Amino acid sequence: MRWNNNQVTKLLSCDYPIIQAGMAGGVTTPELVAAVSNSGGVGTIGAGYLAPDKLVKMIKTVKNKTQKTFGVNVFIPKLPHYYPDQVARSRQLLQPYEQELNLTPRQVMKSSESIFEEQVNAIIKSQVPVCSFTFGVPDKRLVEELHKNGVKVIGTATTVEEAVINEEAGVDIITAQGSEAGGHRGTFNVSFDQGMIGTMSLVPQVVDEVSLPVLAAGGIMDARGLAASLMLGAEGVQMGTAFVTSLESGAKKQHKEAILHAKENETTITSVFSGKPARGIDNEFIKKMKPYQKELPDYPIQNELTKEIRKEAAQRNKPEWMSLWSGQSPRLSRSKHASDVVREVIDGVEKLYGRSN
Amino acid sequence: MRWNNNQVTKLLSCDYPIIQAGMAGGVTTPELVAAVSNSGGVGTIGAGYLAPDKLVKMIKTVKNKTQKTFGVNVFIPKLPHYYPDQVARSRQLLQPYEQELNLTPRQVMKSSESIFEEQVNAIIKSQVPVCSFTFGVPDKRLVEELHKNGVKVIGTATTVEEAVINEEAGVDIITAQGSEAGGHRGTFNVSFDQGMIGTMSLVPQVVDEVSLPVLAAGGIMDARGLAASLMLGAEGVQMGTAFVTSLESGAKKQHKEAILHAKENETTITSVFSGKPARGIDNEFIKKMKPYQKELPDYPIQNELTKEIRKEAAQRNKPEWMSLWSGQSPRLSRSKHASDVVREVIDGVEKLYGRSN
Repeated sequence: MRWNNNQVTKLLSCDYPIIQAGMAGGVTTPELVAAVSNSGGVGTIGAGYLAPDKLVKMIKTVKNKTQKTFGVNVFIPKLPHYYPDQVARSRQLLQPYEQELNLTPRQVMKSSESIFEEQVNAIIKSQVPVCSFTFGVPDKRLVEELHKNGVKVIGTATTVEEAVINEEAGVDIITAQGSEAGGHRGTFNVSFDQGMIGTMSLVPQVVDEVSLPVLAAGGIMDARGLAASLMLGAEGVQMGTAFVTSLESGAKKQHKEAILHAKENETTITSVFSGKPARGIDNEFIKKMKPYQKELPDYPIQNELTKEIRKEAAQRNKPEWMSLWSGQSPRLSRSKHASDVVREVIDGVEKLYGRSN
Repeated sequence: MRWNNNQVTKLLSCDYPIIQAGMAGGVTTPELVAAVSNSGGVGTIGAGYLAPDKLVKMIKTVKNKTQKTFGVNVFIPKLPHYYPDQVARSRQLLQPYEQELNLTPRQVMKSSESIFEEQVNAIIKSQVPVCSFTFGVPDKRLVEELHKNGVKVIGTATTVEEAVINEEAGVDIITAQGSEAGGHRGTFNVSFDQGMIGTMSLVPQVVDEVSLPVLAAGGIMDARGLAASLMLGAEGVQMGTAFVTSLESGAKKQHKEAILHAKENETTITSVFSGKPARGIDNEFIKKMKPYQKELPDYPIQNELTKEIRKEAAQRNKPEWMSLWSGQSPRLSRSKHASDVVREVIDGVEKLYGRSN
């Protein structure tokens, strides 16, 4: 394989077209990000709701650990509809959990709009090589601003049309997120149901309609996944779940254990934790809250409301109340160094491609 | 590519590991089946509820058109729960459609059990080379009986466990049906929701747990799909939607047109047509009946109840009331000869594999 002829490695100045997904919530430690980048892939800080000053600090820590290309993933903000009765209903439904965990009810955060702008400013000022976006598409002028500052931009799409919208916004690379993917759906232009396209279907249909390089995401855990994605016309892959169980990941130990022991049909799509659909391992909290799913507040309000419950549940070793994000290939997960994940994928692809002729 | 080293081509004595799905409902004409087989793949008669005498006749017609390997797909029968109030409710809901189409209400068919046995006997007596099963797993003794008579057996699985059950039953090859697939879900051992695993996730996880050759199904329409499937560890593919729009297919012209013009996110999973979840292009009938989905009778009772509506809707050119089965890759569908579908997939794979080194 001539990886240096690959459009993604050329654009991002990395050795291999393997991007570690920018998972929020403490999974993407500086150690994980640096390990992936030092192995030739692209590590990504999942900024999520990380306060801008903390983000700046984390970027510095990563820069101390690697000279190579890494990225930051940020959420495109969308003002949530705030309905006091939904919040009251959610508070009521969450009360038994809070009571058992001795928690006081949460205050709801203010808009995430201001955080977003400060996060992007931090990315530019800190000269982060790559900025990736989810939950929407960045403004054309923002993309230009990032480009002017030498930052490469990756957008996320779950349908062909979302990919086209990203291309029109001027991004450099598009991640096509198939329905197998773990964590939050990136869908922003259709209903979440309509954005559930399997990776095998999504990738070639996106590749046919855009001229940008495409990263396949969803269900990809090993060499077979990267090799298959390249055959479908992708230039590389984004992998999330495969890195959650890595030794450098900051995922809670119960989260790692749950993935390592899960079967392929034990995940589900739920919005009860955050107000936005995400794929995770089915558990008691999801099952019990499911009947009320449509009554709950929008993302990120619900996310704030359940935050302490999830955190305290981890403290008390109650995985049945934690968000255990995972894609549909948990049987392929292993506990190993992130560097080994990257190396084994690359070594494996060379073998698979050798065997094919 | 050395296709003669492939486990599927060796087992089925065909040139290429491309199996045309045994779609029921008139799609699989003798012309389609023979065209696929004569091109080096394996054409399949979708027997569905085809009366045994008609099946015998169709097998003869196919044999007159090809000397090559072909198959018959049959449904594993499961006695439906017959609840008179569900049937009454369905009749009530279907009445407006029947009225507009000047139809008299349907009688409900008797059990399909007896048809199944006669179908299998017809397959054995007619010395059909391949028998494939969906909606369940064939009895171990039935598989032995088929083997004794020189018939190769293909089972269908939508989860790893379903694949293992098929292997234990003694089948020769397992089709791993991903969530992208069009038409009815083959799920038989878990809830239908739990059987919705994307092809990219399902195939490698099945391959790791069974020792039989695996066919990937779901979203595969062209060379990229076969090449990717082989990389995932499959030995070949089953393709349905790609053949529905072929010139030799017996699908209604509105069905073909709907697929040829559909986008990747316009299909949905519905059980309103048949009582069993299937993927098809969303339309008025599905949308209007959706709120009552859980009140409707089991498969195949509901299938019988809507049969005339679907047929008459086609007659009157009302695709909005027809079942327009399709997988999630309709953008890749083309109107062309079935032989060209096979040839282009094979030629394309050779090119893709050449390029990979």
